Amino acid sequence: MATQAAKRVLVVAGLGNGSGTGAATARLFAKKGFNVALIARGKDIVDKLSEEIKSSGGQAAPFAVESYSAQHIASAWGAIRNHYPSPEYNIRAAVFNAGYGVWKPFLDITPEEVQTSLQTNIASAFAFSREAILSFKENDIEEANGKRGILIFTGATASLRGNVVTSAFAAGKHGLRALSQSLAKEFGKQNIHVAHSIIDGGILVDRSRAQKGPEWEANEDVRLSPDSIANSYWYLTSQDRSAWTWELDLRPAHEKW
Amino acid sequence: MATQAAKRVLVVAGLGNGSGTGAATARLFAKKGFNVALIARGKDIVDKLSEEIKSSGGQAAPFAVESYSAQHIASAWGAIRNHYPSPEYNIRAAVFNAGYGVWKPFLDITPEEVQTSLQTNIASAFAFSREAILSFKENDIEEANGKRGILIFTGATASLRGNVVTSAFAAGKHGLRALSQSLAKEFGKQNIHVAHSIIDGGILVDRSRAQKGPEWEANEDVRLSPDSIANSYWYLTSQDRSAWTWELDLRPAHEKW
Amino acid sequence: MATQAAKRVLVVAGLGNGSGTGAATARLFAKKGFNVALIARGKDIVDKLSEEIKSSGGQAAPFAVESYSAQHIASAWGAIRNHYPSPEYNIRAAVFNAGYGVWKPFLDITPEEVQTSLQTNIASAFAFSREAILSFKENDIEEANGKRGILIFTGATASLRGNVVTSAFAAGKHGLRALSQSLAKEFGKQNIHVAHSIIDGGILVDRSRAQKGPEWEANEDVRLSPDSIANSYWYLTSQDRSAWTWELDLRPAHEKW
Amino acid sequence: MATQAAKRVLVVAGLGNGSGTGAATARLFAKKGFNVALIARGKDIVDKLSEEIKSSGGQAAPFAVESYSAQHIASAWGAIRNHYPSPEYNIRAAVFNAGYGVWKPFLDITPEEVQTSLQTNIASAFAFSREAILSFKENDIEEANGKRGILIFTGATASLRGNVVTSAFAAGKHGLRALSQSLAKEFGKQNIHVAHSIIDGGILVDRSRAQKGPEWEANEDVRLSPDSIANSYWYLTSQDRSAWTWELDLRPAHEKW
Repeated sequence: MATQAAKRVLVVAGLGNGSGTGAATARLFAKKGFNVALIARGKDIVDKLSEEIKSSGGQAAPFAVESYSAQHIASAWGAIRNHYPSPEYNIRAAVFNAGYGVWKPFLDITPEEVQTSLQTNIASAFAFSREAILSFKENDIEEANGKRGILIFTGATASLRGNVVTSAFAAGKHGLRALSQSLAKEFGKQNIHVAHSIIDGGILVDRSRAQKGPEWEANEDVRLSPDSIANSYWYLTSQDRSAWTWELDLRPAHEKW
Repeated sequence: MATQAAKRVLVVAGLGNGSGTGAATARLFAKKGFNVALIARGKDIVDKLSEEIKSSGGQAAPFAVESYSAQHIASAWGAIRNHYPSPEYNIRAAVFNAGYGVWKPFLDITPEEVQTSLQTNIASAFAFSREAILSFKENDIEEANGKRGILIFTGATASLRGNVVTSAFAAGKHGLRALSQSLAKEFGKQNIHVAHSIIDGGILVDRSRAQKGPEWEANEDVRLSPDSIANSYWYLTSQDRSAWTWELDLRPAHEKW
Repeated sequence: MATQAAKRVLVVAGLGNGSGTGAATARLFAKKGFNVALIARGKDIVDKLSEEIKSSGGQAAPFAVESYSAQHIASAWGAIRNHYPSPEYNIRAAVFNAGYGVWKPFLDITPEEVQTSLQTNIASAFAFSREAILSFKENDIEEANGKRGILIFTGATASLRGNVVTSAFAAGKHGLRALSQSLAKEFGKQNIHVAHSIIDGGILVDRSRAQKGPEWEANEDVRLSPDSIANSYWYLTSQDRSAWTWELDLRPAHEKW
Repeated sequence: MATQAAKRVLVVAGLGNGSGTGAATARLFAKKGFNVALIARGKDIVDKLSEEIKSSGGQAAPFAVESYSAQHIASAWGAIRNHYPSPEYNIRAAVFNAGYGVWKPFLDITPEEVQTSLQTNIASAFAFSREAILSFKENDIEEANGKRGILIFTGATASLRGNVVTSAFAAGKHGLRALSQSLAKEFGKQNIHVAHSIIDGGILVDRSRAQKGPEWEANEDVRLSPDSIANSYWYLTSQDRSAWTWELDLRPAHEKW
């Protein structure tokens, strides 16, 4: 059983190009003293972000995966456990931020896109959750927050509503939300905190910055800052056992909804 | 473009052993004058039900599928269109009643069960919906109900809530519900009606009859009759274009919820 | 205890000017053989609709109320019970269709408008429900549908969402929906069916007809027909005890939602 | 227009006996440097809590109201604005924590209890919100969080579900939730943040402590600490404009839901 003195580890999956929610969460938790294990498809991004965090005085390590298959995710977690062995380290937080979006009229969506949505948004989340919970169950309960660990999922508007061009994306995000609720109910009793965010608006990442231009970027009222989402994940992590949040929504002040 | 005089066809997928919702829907629509195309895994059940309907004076034909893969579903629909060619026949209703349930603590659920849930509950519904909508788009609008066609999905309690032992099932059913909502929004404008039922209770089928015994079977207040669910599908089919229902819940009078 | 041979009575409250949901429900149930007790503010409308139904061969009686206060509603029900005495008559259905809408920016809404919304949309529904349930509890269970009685509430988009100009209306309609759910759960066990409709679109009534013009009126795809809503209430009334619906939504085929 | 240098004021309404959410919020915001205006029925509690906060080095002032009528609430806010005049002070946060609960079978609930629920849970919230928003509109936007002000409502399980004995309470809490959503949508665009918490479990207050005993009190996994709820309100207050939460749920780690 791990001790309170162990170094805390965050595992985060889904990093895009390093400008979004996953990377911001990694940076913030690193600043707060966590060792950060970075999972993403693509060696470049995990290496780059890992180096960036370390050069800022934090601790991080890269764990690229070939795909988000159950097998590859399990392998990555195996490598993480080797890299951050108990009892010196405790995996205390896990953020599943991987996702796959497709916005198309229904008849234009291919069976392959449906498969990718279900695989990336749901099946890989099952695999990631399994590893996170197996790790958390080995931990003792932290005094400060009453948790063995916290598992956070990044949701979207499509987690709550199917819209005209979101059939495949919404199916994936609805499924992920269901998983998160089942886990929250099953593992809360074991002091494992499971939370789900509804990101209801555009996030400021490199891609949206390029598409929408400097005026949009400059207007904090109309787009989500990845750092602000990361702050909410940190708040969730700090919630003590008497008052845990399963779900919160996050949107810019001026968002129409 | 099909004419009003064409014979109406229902395609129903998911028949269990012939004692549940899919079969009851097939029987009811056959009584109402529909030709019924039966899709299920297993030649036995589609043949048996087809014969039963025909011996009761109805019209039906069997279309067994090896699996609910996109490819097998598309092939079955191809065979159905050949069997019921336009303009003599119009495919006017499609009921997706296939499903896969697994009730287990999260850590006991295998990656294969997750895959089967996503494939059967969601991916196959995408494939089925695609074929239904492509067929409906060929139809004119029926005067009586203002529809080119109606596509109905069978949901469950798990469509709305993830519970302790339902993570994989709820992920599938949530995804299906999202699909149905996207389709309702996209294709309502084309006079294609998409509906989703929430079956919130135990259905009286051979398996539950065997498990729960004659007292439960005899008590109509505590279990859903497949015929009553079929009645609701018939009501949805008859709704005129001014007032369509996307979603309704169905539960026994004495159900605790 | 009332007998199966008793004449069935519908009590409906909220008739507008006789061109909407309440009046269409009264006409339909009268055609189906119900005696219809009409509650509304304003003697003119209840008298006029009562005469109209009788001249069409139906049975109806007017019960004007001064207001929808608990006291006036109880008095009206007292008069109805006298007019349709047991065991000759059974009050078997009750539809609460009264409502008060106000669409204004929040700061323009007066405390009086808030009060009227809460009184008409919620408090009067409590009073109406109390009388309906007390009457239903005196009934035996009808064989055909397994009910002692059915109580139906008319909801709206604002039952599910608060929007920019709907604060007072949505507060009222959310409250009504909560009441209907509590009642459905408490009294289902006593074979009293409670249902709630979500009317998600514009209804074709005299006022909207005047506002939106003949093109809108002629286009069945864009507005709800009161008769179609009434059909859904009749369907709910006919549902047998094994499969009752608490909530269904109704919207025109082309509605954006 | 108020300046950034102004002293920040929190107005909180609904203090129970000073052992619950309202009082904990007052204490926490006082520690964070807010001047706290205390509204409650009963001079004793506002005086006592005001003294307590001042004796701990904070700033507070009592504003007892005779009732939560629109008129009394407006008067209290008038007195608060006089006590904390602009531009020296800015009312920056308002927490509506007043509520009225009644848990009874439907037929045991009196019209007076319905009225009290609607008045306290909804109508008074309209009056309180009006005053808060009128005050916030006078403020400039704070740099740190992008807000003119934040208005927080305390909700409950009954905000989302009507249950067997909660008809009157749920009607009130559903209505409050609708109000909060309408306000969030209307005033977000003016940089006024409106949030709603779902308290889904028992809160540790003097009354529940007395009822449930020392074992329950000692077990942080099974009851909500008012301080933890207050922490969530502080977190909401600190959220920057790019990522505001309208709604979050809060429940103890071991809560069954």
